[in-house]
Amino acid sequence: MIELRSDNAAGVAPDILAAVEAANTGSALAYGGDDLTAHLQDVVRSVFDHPSARAFPVTSGTAANSLALSAATPPWGAVLCHPTAHIVTSEAGATSLFGGGAVMQGVEGDHALIDPDRLRATLDSVRWGDPHESQPSVLSLTLPSDLGTLYRPEEVTALAAIARGSGLKVHLDGARIANAVAALGCSPADVTWRAGVDVLSLGATKNGALSAEAIVVFDDRIAEELVYRTKRAGHVTSKMRFQSAQLTAYLTDGLWLRLATTANRRMAALVAELEDLDDVRLTERVEVNMAFVELPPSAIEALAEVGLLCYRMSPTTVRLVTSWQTTEADIGGAADAVRKALALAPGV
Amino acid sequence: MIELRSDNAAGVAPDILAAVEAANTGSALAYGGDDLTAHLQDVVRSVFDHPSARAFPVTSGTAANSLALSAATPPWGAVLCHPTAHIVTSEAGATSLFGGGAVMQGVEGDHALIDPDRLRATLDSVRWGDPHESQPSVLSLTLPSDLGTLYRPEEVTALAAIARGSGLKVHLDGARIANAVAALGCSPADVTWRAGVDVLSLGATKNGALSAEAIVVFDDRIAEELVYRTKRAGHVTSKMRFQSAQLTAYLTDGLWLRLATTANRRMAALVAELEDLDDVRLTERVEVNMAFVELPPSAIEALAEVGLLCYRMSPTTVRLVTSWQTTEADIGGAADAVRKALALAPGV
Amino acid sequence: MIELRSDNAAGVAPDILAAVEAANTGSALAYGGDDLTAHLQDVVRSVFDHPSARAFPVTSGTAANSLALSAATPPWGAVLCHPTAHIVTSEAGATSLFGGGAVMQGVEGDHALIDPDRLRATLDSVRWGDPHESQPSVLSLTLPSDLGTLYRPEEVTALAAIARGSGLKVHLDGARIANAVAALGCSPADVTWRAGVDVLSLGATKNGALSAEAIVVFDDRIAEELVYRTKRAGHVTSKMRFQSAQLTAYLTDGLWLRLATTANRRMAALVAELEDLDDVRLTERVEVNMAFVELPPSAIEALAEVGLLCYRMSPTTVRLVTSWQTTEADIGGAADAVRKALALAPGV
Amino acid sequence: MIELRSDNAAGVAPDILAAVEAANTGSALAYGGDDLTAHLQDVVRSVFDHPSARAFPVTSGTAANSLALSAATPPWGAVLCHPTAHIVTSEAGATSLFGGGAVMQGVEGDHALIDPDRLRATLDSVRWGDPHESQPSVLSLTLPSDLGTLYRPEEVTALAAIARGSGLKVHLDGARIANAVAALGCSPADVTWRAGVDVLSLGATKNGALSAEAIVVFDDRIAEELVYRTKRAGHVTSKMRFQSAQLTAYLTDGLWLRLATTANRRMAALVAELEDLDDVRLTERVEVNMAFVELPPSAIEALAEVGLLCYRMSPTTVRLVTSWQTTEADIGGAADAVRKALALAPGV
Repeated sequence: MIELRSDNAAGVAPDILAAVEAANTGSALAYGGDDLTAHLQDVVRSVFDHPSARAFPVTSGTAANSLALSAATPPWGAVLCHPTAHIVTSEAGATSLFGGGAVMQGVEGDHALIDPDRLRATLDSVRWGDPHESQPSVLSLTLPSDLGTLYRPEEVTALAAIARGSGLKVHLDGARIANAVAALGCSPADVTWRAGVDVLSLGATKNGALSAEAIVVFDDRIAEELVYRTKRAGHVTSKMRFQSAQLTAYLTDGLWLRLATTANRRMAALVAELEDLDDVRLTERVEVNMAFVELPPSAIEALAEVGLLCYRMSPTTVRLVTSWQTTEADIGGAADAVRKALALAPGV
Repeated sequence: MIELRSDNAAGVAPDILAAVEAANTGSALAYGGDDLTAHLQDVVRSVFDHPSARAFPVTSGTAANSLALSAATPPWGAVLCHPTAHIVTSEAGATSLFGGGAVMQGVEGDHALIDPDRLRATLDSVRWGDPHESQPSVLSLTLPSDLGTLYRPEEVTALAAIARGSGLKVHLDGARIANAVAALGCSPADVTWRAGVDVLSLGATKNGALSAEAIVVFDDRIAEELVYRTKRAGHVTSKMRFQSAQLTAYLTDGLWLRLATTANRRMAALVAELEDLDDVRLTERVEVNMAFVELPPSAIEALAEVGLLCYRMSPTTVRLVTSWQTTEADIGGAADAVRKALALAPGV
Repeated sequence: MIELRSDNAAGVAPDILAAVEAANTGSALAYGGDDLTAHLQDVVRSVFDHPSARAFPVTSGTAANSLALSAATPPWGAVLCHPTAHIVTSEAGATSLFGGGAVMQGVEGDHALIDPDRLRATLDSVRWGDPHESQPSVLSLTLPSDLGTLYRPEEVTALAAIARGSGLKVHLDGARIANAVAALGCSPADVTWRAGVDVLSLGATKNGALSAEAIVVFDDRIAEELVYRTKRAGHVTSKMRFQSAQLTAYLTDGLWLRLATTANRRMAALVAELEDLDDVRLTERVEVNMAFVELPPSAIEALAEVGLLCYRMSPTTVRLVTSWQTTEADIGGAADAVRKALALAPGV
Repeated sequence: MIELRSDNAAGVAPDILAAVEAANTGSALAYGGDDLTAHLQDVVRSVFDHPSARAFPVTSGTAANSLALSAATPPWGAVLCHPTAHIVTSEAGATSLFGGGAVMQGVEGDHALIDPDRLRATLDSVRWGDPHESQPSVLSLTLPSDLGTLYRPEEVTALAAIARGSGLKVHLDGARIANAVAALGCSPADVTWRAGVDVLSLGATKNGALSAEAIVVFDDRIAEELVYRTKRAGHVTSKMRFQSAQLTAYLTDGLWLRLATTANRRMAALVAELEDLDDVRLTERVEVNMAFVELPPSAIEALAEVGLLCYRMSPTTVRLVTSWQTTEADIGGAADAVRKALALAPGV
């Protein structure tokens, strides 16, 4: 079977597993008091070209997002995000739980990207200071978006400027930030703090880690709160050195970008094949490692039989996701599978 | 340096790391939809001799405790526990966070063990049904206790019976449950569900896992809630197979008990040495891998210099903890270090 | 000045104030243990023709809504409501606070009324049992809606049936329920429990009470939770007899409906006058005591000068609300004021 | 029957009811936007001799305490209070609910008053900045205490200084603050902000109001948070002018202190009678309007029969509370009743 359901389904990259093994020597102070976690701070500061960024290793993307947001909003705040954002659709209210009842409010835009004019209009219509109304307090951007589309650095900058102009903090959900940075060819700083981002959920698990994400914080007050918020949410692992080892390996010598580049390229190759096929239509532009594809329903039904695993989004659409582990052979096989499924589909 | 600060400072047991490596093959459905997590359920049912127990892998003991308790208490409930319990002293209010404002109430007893008469008296004094008063809803026992002492199976049974008689659920904080089961020589079922326990925090990280604990649930309603509560707390890892692999290896063929037995034996050997020394006094009976030792303050000051790492509990007391990784040589070295520290201590 | 900003701006109806005065005799057990609160239960059961309904007096509509909802949803639940609902727009996340992080999700429909097809579609698209997604758990209807429009009893019945078919509870925000019942000419039971409603926020303050609303519960489990939830939210007043006295007077001998009928009729009279005017347009049908009126911006600017108080919803729209206290003279004066404002408006 | 169960059982003082009636004229902006609420601010500043104090009217003491505390502590904080404090024993976890999981920790002391040495010791033992431990963030004092005892102004000052020295905020639960101020003969400022108190729960309901308490805030940041926290908890009444009218009447021309003085004097008279009786023992010094009295169990059984209503605290103790409404005749009757009950008691 060819795996294109999710990059979450992939395994651990060899270099990252090796780092875990290498960390298993001697003893170390628990709960982040170890040398590897201290070193991770330096690595993050170097990669993000920021003198005082702090990294809090956690073990899930939901934890990274909801804890980051809870430290950036008061309980009476509203988190503005695109209606397709993972924090709204797929985290079961984690942000409202950790945020003490803070709410999320959608701001629309094409391609799952927030439209600056709509953001401005939303902020203009707020009754600021009126306690009857949840007060917008954070803008949460997702990069790449949940449809695999990208904000350019200048677009992040523009949105963040609008938000900050009304006193909001800015969060970036970067569950797949490596794929975005690799595709954009920009520096990590350019789509984060230099663009006005206060706190980043830096994903690693989907892109080759075993079980490690990091909240990367560029704002001191948010960092101070996270010291307590991570702990009381059960998100300070006792043997944190093993998370830190993963993250350090991931961010060192560009490994994260190499892994992401592989995933992106595999998807580009697959898209090139799919674009040649009749009865196949991409419903969204493909910028990283994710494609949304319209197919005849009967072809969708046939995909698993012919060896291709993917998520069905609707009766006529599937999502395909490549990972660091996807091979060229997988892409050839996936394209063949789609062709076979189309051939099997009656009446097409 | 000899490491006796905490079993949390130890590394990963080779068999568990091997299981992680072995799990890194092919792809697998994320968020626990994988075969290894399914298999873990069978392993837990077999080890606990229970037909329908469910295991929820998480990555910290605080997560295990607070999520388990939040599923066992309404927000207006009170969790009864010993005042020394980790959930009170060391989890920064996690239970109140996840419990929607549920509170913790102490019930005293010698040796950090809840006294049945006091538990009965506490329950007798409750104004049941009076909404002004937090309603006791869960009894949380810690085994071994935070001072390393043990309830016998019949003691757990008696306490659980008192609690259940008033409609409470029973939780067992088993961050070091392997050390307890190994020391008691009982079956895992005898100190858990057969004794009246509804939900268990089964620790593994301190005893050789990389980053894995499990909430083991014997009550269906609690299990149903945990499906949602774990996710929205960010405690459903995407590549859960790597947590499940650790837990399965840990619980298979008695590995968990072998690792714990080593830790317990090392401590027993150390205690035997310490008991021979003047100016050294054990402040609590030693039943597992933990000792609390009174020493002259100047000796305590000297311990690090002479190569022994441990926690200072007060100016005159230290805590020593052995782990699966502690060697016989470490014990010899630790005893020597104590002797040297005593010798260095002026005026002793 | 003529007051049409809100029915909240009106005073206390004489019969209700008299009831408060009459209750001020002797002493009474606090926190609802008094005879008047006991009697209120009988009154509510009689008015709603229900054998076991329970009333919980509270002192604000936000309290009634958010506490009712918190008892009807688990923390991982979603409350479905129209995007214009007060619980979304004007309660600052109270439902998420008391609901332990439960979220609100909008279901659209014309005239601020939920469309049954959209409700069905929303429920059909839920991944039931998937913990990544907030699970719809309550349908909250607003009657009259925040735009003053009405569901008919059979429409409530239909929507409730759809919701209950998916296991949802049904809440009715009846901040102005008296105005609705008076306008519909139905029995209170017909738009509540007989239509499938489990819990009702019964407003009284806007319609003549001093400071009293009631959560009226038709579902025993919700009632049991509210015993605790009201108290721990600080919503069990100590001298509850004075809230209960207000509510009893309000619901006795049809006072609530007489007061509401006055308000509704005054608005109907005003609408009749406004419909004759050029440059005046009602933007929504008027069914109770509320009208949304489009006017030239300059006329809106002039309204206060010519003696009419109302809320500006946008540069071109105002909201007018009559109350039990609005007189026929007020209506004449209001119509005059609008005419004067139009005359003053330059360039119309 | 003579009512000595609670001052909560008393009615509304005539001057306060008159103020409610007087407020029922014309219309007024809702949610505190009215003139009476604005005037209340001036009254509070004058009574407390503070230039910028702010009053937030609420309708229960639990609301006042828990909202005040939630604005003074972060969610990872601990509220230090005496173990007998109402916030611990009788508010069902409201502080943990509104505080987002903040916890309460007891600090002992005789006579239900916190001992300064113990407070110091508690603060000295904190691992400040360690996220495993709830961080003490507020000291909550109760004046008078739940046993009716008093801190002197200099005692409040000393305790507050200790607390503030460790960065804590200071809260005063003044559910019966009028009784304390009347008994101490001090100025209201002397036991509040001049003594180091940041926020006060000022009770009025027990002492003659209909349904009104105020959170009085001397700290701007706490006040800013309360704007939002009160609203989203449903504790901003729409017709707030009727709460504000009560509070203004209460605080004007010393009414609050006159009412409290009556209650205190009645209790003093009763105590004088009880002290003469054999088999009667006061278990706590009596400083305001509350006494705890030890009696033979059979006498306690007989009290209701002979016409005296009071709370039984244990088989051998009752609590007696006078109110502004208690008459001299009531006191004579109460003393007679106790004598009769003792006479009836077999074997005494």
